[in-house]
Amino acid sequence: MRRPMTIALSAALLAPALVEAQTLKVSPNGARSSSIGSAANFTGAVAVTPLFAPNEYNNAGAGQVEFAPGARSHWHTHPAGQTLIITSGTGWVQQEGGEKIQVRAGDVIWAPPGVKHWHGATAGNSMSHIAVTPTLDGKNVDWLEPVTDEQFR
Amino acid sequence: MRRPMTIALSAALLAPALVEAQTLKVSPNGARSSSIGSAANFTGAVAVTPLFAPNEYNNAGAGQVEFAPGARSHWHTHPAGQTLIITSGTGWVQQEGGEKIQVRAGDVIWAPPGVKHWHGATAGNSMSHIAVTPTLDGKNVDWLEPVTDEQFR
Repeated sequence: MRRPMTIALSAALLAPALVEAQTLKVSPNGARSSSIGSAANFTGAVAVTPLFAPNEYNNAGAGQVEFAPGARSHWHTHPAGQTLIITSGTGWVQQEGGEKIQVRAGDVIWAPPGVKHWHGATAGNSMSHIAVTPTLDGKNVDWLEPVTDEQFR
Repeated sequence: MRRPMTIALSAALLAPALVEAQTLKVSPNGARSSSIGSAANFTGAVAVTPLFAPNEYNNAGAGQVEFAPGARSHWHTHPAGQTLIITSGTGWVQQEGGEKIQVRAGDVIWAPPGVKHWHGATAGNSMSHIAVTPTLDGKNVDWLEPVTDEQFR
């Protein structure tokens, strides 16, 4: 009789964690604090709001990034690539050696792994995007040098 | 001398594919056709616009879904879960056996694998969300029965 009781007790102790894992979770707008984009990685006024983190089922996390006119990321690469969904405004994206490409709300950009690039607002327009970034070996970005004003304009 | 030449030639033949894979890709708004949500999976007026497909680096794909007032998904589960980012309006989400939860623009919802639930607009408000859905063994949703008017209201 002891073995079944032990098993039942173990199941009861495990139950709260199992129930929690099976629950729809709502993270309300405002619950995830925005931060100012670090001058180590961005030029100009940039706000970053986390949306969701990678988990055991989805290797990508996501955040909303808002760029004031003239603001942009530094040059960078992603070890597992990144998808940008432009959610408002007008911005520029550029791959090293390529032309600046103008992007607008509703456009979707795929930056393949290892491709050196930057993204940001245009000189005269703000731009916001959702960035969906897969993680590889715990890393999702490698930051490089700033985009100079000459490169930007 | 022949071995190095062969290698050089092989590299040249491979180059176009490599270059293509290394290019920033922009999918403009309007390039991805929207479809009307099938009556087999939705109740009411629903429009679905693909954003991006899973690839070898990211096991999740994403789409924008717009629900007119009263419109909602059928009950369903996701084998690898799903994250919803509410992008406009006010909607309802409900897990089987739980209360309806009101969600608004900026809220983020995680539906764990296997949790039976539905999401949609409220009775009086439209709602749009981006759905980010990981794929498991080529599948990302299992559709179930419609949400009845009694369940919805």
